[in-house]
Amino acid sequence: MMEQELQYITEQQTPYARLSLAVDRVLYDTQSEFQHIQVAESRQFGRLLVLDGVFQTSLAEEWVYHEMITHVPLTLHPNPKRVLVIGGGDGGSVREVLRHPSVERVDMVEIDGEVVRVAKEYFPQIAAALLAEPERLHVKIGDGIAHVKATRDEYDVIIVDCSDPIGPGEGLFTREFYQAAATALKADGILVQQTESPFMHQKLVHGVFAAFRSVFPITRLYLASIPIYPSGLHCFTLGSKQYDPLRQPPREGIPGDMHYYNSAVARAAFALPEFVKDVLRNRPE
Amino acid sequence: MMEQELQYITEQQTPYARLSLAVDRVLYDTQSEFQHIQVAESRQFGRLLVLDGVFQTSLAEEWVYHEMITHVPLTLHPNPKRVLVIGGGDGGSVREVLRHPSVERVDMVEIDGEVVRVAKEYFPQIAAALLAEPERLHVKIGDGIAHVKATRDEYDVIIVDCSDPIGPGEGLFTREFYQAAATALKADGILVQQTESPFMHQKLVHGVFAAFRSVFPITRLYLASIPIYPSGLHCFTLGSKQYDPLRQPPREGIPGDMHYYNSAVARAAFALPEFVKDVLRNRPE
Repeated sequence: MMEQELQYITEQQTPYARLSLAVDRVLYDTQSEFQHIQVAESRQFGRLLVLDGVFQTSLAEEWVYHEMITHVPLTLHPNPKRVLVIGGGDGGSVREVLRHPSVERVDMVEIDGEVVRVAKEYFPQIAAALLAEPERLHVKIGDGIAHVKATRDEYDVIIVDCSDPIGPGEGLFTREFYQAAATALKADGILVQQTESPFMHQKLVHGVFAAFRSVFPITRLYLASIPIYPSGLHCFTLGSKQYDPLRQPPREGIPGDMHYYNSAVARAAFALPEFVKDVLRNRPE
Repeated sequence: MMEQELQYITEQQTPYARLSLAVDRVLYDTQSEFQHIQVAESRQFGRLLVLDGVFQTSLAEEWVYHEMITHVPLTLHPNPKRVLVIGGGDGGSVREVLRHPSVERVDMVEIDGEVVRVAKEYFPQIAAALLAEPERLHVKIGDGIAHVKATRDEYDVIIVDCSDPIGPGEGLFTREFYQAAATALKADGILVQQTESPFMHQKLVHGVFAAFRSVFPITRLYLASIPIYPSGLHCFTLGSKQYDPLRQPPREGIPGDMHYYNSAVARAAFALPEFVKDVLRNRPE
């Protein structure tokens, strides 16, 4: 018997590029207060979370993003105790942060409580820490920017696990926010933000890097391969008050197995191709 | 005035994933003796070459593939003089090989003369060396496998710049061919082949790596980010009789500017994420 024509879900990644994934079923499709939330079973990457039409994470590769946005800053800091995750409503980032025995407290501030609810129901593997509710984890549904502005000298590491700079994530891509984050960090703190693709979003990458540099003594970009994101190459911008990933090897010894991260990959992630260096140096047209 | 609805050209990357690129015009569309050849003007990546429906290369990012498939083996070898490129009909690989002053002769054996003709007409930047016809370059239209089988102890580096293992590239993905290539190499020679995506083609990556390992004393995998290829993460398999990229830093000093390659990137390319190590170790289902 012929297989039925597969249904595809399509992300318009840029005005001129689209990625389409075959899905067996759409399990959830609702407009929250903040965004359009969809959950679908994709054939290529398993269960898939889509926010405002943008592929956010999937079971088959969520670990690239979650391991790389967390373990890179947490192994750069010699002894991270207090960590803030802004966004990250699916729970993957706090799951990874909590693997670090030194971490005494993780605050997670997610603006859209519906994302947390959907993650717990449809992505229990990613939301494992949200479901387990360990004492070290404090989840707040609210505005991450307001939380940061109300905080001083508090965190060792702040992780901005946000969506694109369109919609609820917009205010997280401003110099004003980075300045507030620097104030919320301790004297040797580290800020990391996901900052899209150096192939596809060159103005954004350049602008965020310049803004970080105006705030932090040390600013570095690092890379990871995320197949459901535009171009497959994603970057993270890291601002640091004291520790430089180009001079200091990542701390070893995170308990448990990884799917992507290891210390060689963490070091290699900062080796930038020539065109990426160029994006950081010269404002793209 | 509203922009006209854009035309998209779609690659079915896997049975369950499609990448679509907006194109202004299809400039060329013909069935050669070996494959369906298309040239289109894409908005995202500029002029695009498509073979049998598979995106091969584009002006905006051809340098990732061409720099990484050539300079990694050529800077591992201390003094590459004779180089063979199998396939590579667009000319990008021989353009990069010829940047190395040590190289005295490059043989290129491409099975489809129509690809060479199309590259010269529509991609003069990529085909620059084909158009310039330097004395060091010898282009043969013919069967790369037959050429390799007829050769002994001849080349310092062999580069297999082929399409997917479906269609004309098929015979290039066999242990028999790797054995013949090893015989065609000198006692300290290096073979490199493009081997698809470690996210999307895990059986192929595993199988080729195992076959290389049964032939070469040293087999390594390295990675590069190619946005028009499935998943955006591409791998290259390297077999070497003597030089180990994990032990030996890349030779410096290639003349001219790069867009992707530098020696830090060359070293970093061999830092494999955990899931890639797993693909090499355990045959995927």
